[in-house]
Amino acid sequence: MHRIEIEIAEQPDVIARLLKDQRSNAEKIATAIRAFAPTFVCIAARGTSDNAARYAQYAFGAQLGLPVMLATPSLHTLYHAPPNLSRALVIGISQSGQSDDVRQVLADAQAQGALTLAITNAPDSPLAQNAEYHLDIGAGEERSVAATKTYTAQLGALALLTSALAGDAEHFAALDQMPGHLAATLATSAEIGSWAQRYRYMNFCVALGRGYNFCTAFEINLKLQELCYIPGHGYSEADFRHGPIAMIQPGFPVVVIAPNDRTLPLMRDLLVKLRERDAESIVISDDDEALALATRSVRLPTGIPEWLTPLTAVIPGQVLAMHVALAKGYPVDAPRGLNKVTVTR
Amino acid sequence: MHRIEIEIAEQPDVIARLLKDQRSNAEKIATAIRAFAPTFVCIAARGTSDNAARYAQYAFGAQLGLPVMLATPSLHTLYHAPPNLSRALVIGISQSGQSDDVRQVLADAQAQGALTLAITNAPDSPLAQNAEYHLDIGAGEERSVAATKTYTAQLGALALLTSALAGDAEHFAALDQMPGHLAATLATSAEIGSWAQRYRYMNFCVALGRGYNFCTAFEINLKLQELCYIPGHGYSEADFRHGPIAMIQPGFPVVVIAPNDRTLPLMRDLLVKLRERDAESIVISDDDEALALATRSVRLPTGIPEWLTPLTAVIPGQVLAMHVALAKGYPVDAPRGLNKVTVTR
Repeated sequence: MHRIEIEIAEQPDVIARLLKDQRSNAEKIATAIRAFAPTFVCIAARGTSDNAARYAQYAFGAQLGLPVMLATPSLHTLYHAPPNLSRALVIGISQSGQSDDVRQVLADAQAQGALTLAITNAPDSPLAQNAEYHLDIGAGEERSVAATKTYTAQLGALALLTSALAGDAEHFAALDQMPGHLAATLATSAEIGSWAQRYRYMNFCVALGRGYNFCTAFEINLKLQELCYIPGHGYSEADFRHGPIAMIQPGFPVVVIAPNDRTLPLMRDLLVKLRERDAESIVISDDDEALALATRSVRLPTGIPEWLTPLTAVIPGQVLAMHVALAKGYPVDAPRGLNKVTVTR
Repeated sequence: MHRIEIEIAEQPDVIARLLKDQRSNAEKIATAIRAFAPTFVCIAARGTSDNAARYAQYAFGAQLGLPVMLATPSLHTLYHAPPNLSRALVIGISQSGQSDDVRQVLADAQAQGALTLAITNAPDSPLAQNAEYHLDIGAGEERSVAATKTYTAQLGALALLTSALAGDAEHFAALDQMPGHLAATLATSAEIGSWAQRYRYMNFCVALGRGYNFCTAFEINLKLQELCYIPGHGYSEADFRHGPIAMIQPGFPVVVIAPNDRTLPLMRDLLVKLRERDAESIVISDDDEALALATRSVRLPTGIPEWLTPLTAVIPGQVLAMHVALAKGYPVDAPRGLNKVTVTR
């Protein structure tokens, strides 16, 4: 069995452990954040962790009214002109905690008086050690180069922090249901193996989501790039209509994330447009109408609150990327040209 | 002559006119911003205008110490849960000023007490009329669907505002040289027509930049998508190393924006890596070493301050996208599936 297959399957347990082990820590951090009363949040991250940051833009924004910016690390590392983050909560997200650029953003922010928090899978790492607070995602060692369980654990950590900041029982109760929903999603995703060979020769692919699942579109596309070397990108449904939709021609493969929530009317409308242009749509949804518009589809569990759907909706994309890479005969645990720890500055 | 060719050629005049007509308005707006003393800046924009917003992240960040976040319009339009922007300068950028979602972000921010500014090419538009301040890019009607002159004019407007906020003669003096530099870049870009046919059959392409020219990578890629229907994306050099670099194989076409500035050592190193993998690199640079590593190249004028290079570096990409579209026989002024005004919510 490939490491990535094992790590994808571990996700329900990783989330369950995180919720149990980190709840009191998250509440302690939430108390510090409330005391600091940040005007805004700045998150520094790269790659998969940056997609987790995109999730926080919606979770913190809609649930807590906190505006979230993604950091521009070059301002810190290349230009040595850090913007004024003194009134911000500054969060660094990194699986390894080794990213020099993420650490530099937090160091600059700390010197300015900001409140800093690291979210890592490595409590002994420089990022975790140097931040004022640390939230350990505790996903266990991730040996496959492409991140899967650490991504959903990062989302889980951000959702846990959201719940602690919201300070109500409802958020925590919804979160406690997620391990079961992840397991159910893994179960329905198993059938992807029976049709993934259809995409053996696709030579580009885009993934589309909106709102909370903007991050899911990005992350699914990143997996297709890393594991299958397939060019393309994730888009917000709205940005896609502002130009990139011109690319769509018969057979163009599009992954569409369309959970039954406030984005559904827009995503359904987009699916109709994609069908008119004979695009090939791979739909991840719990909505019958959206699923009926698909060329291929994966059914999500129903009854997940919108703000938590990114934890499940990404799983079919992880499984799809793995199967397409296997169909291509690619080394799924160690894609060419990538290392587990990427050093950028 | 195609409209887009005329509009690309108009860019030096558009910038010259903008600098002349809008300087006192920019200084008036700068006075209001200083009085308001925002903790951070939030910019709402879609498509090409969003790439101008990416420029502001670096110009405002490095030149003024102002952190800039890109808005998440869904929080305003779909979730009706606007984050707290009361301490922010909130800028809406839209060529047409018709974007409902951009307008909604500014309306919510205004109700919260934020300072609002619209940057449009349409003074009578809803966005321009409803914002507290308006900066008119005055680019003249843009009839080609793909934005060219309005993009560089948006960059020019943001650079003008940066200069007014910096409040020193040096910024204005550098900006006043830009019409000449744009004209020089148009002159060296003319030869692209002699080799653009080489890319008639490229079926994907990525564009890479870093720091100030992160926006340029995004915008060049957007032109290739809109005009040539070529999938791909723009990346920061750092993000590209975190995964997408796995896609690179012999012949993979990559546009590399590498002006002679603080990003150059990183971009040169990336060019060496791309050459090792036999990628096809189209290099936009004023550095001999970077140009020598290219498969095809366009030489930029020398002596442009780093913070203003995005105004020139995008031009070869506009010209390239136009010529590749012409080589493909595509309707360059009205790409399929696009309208000049895109309504999203």
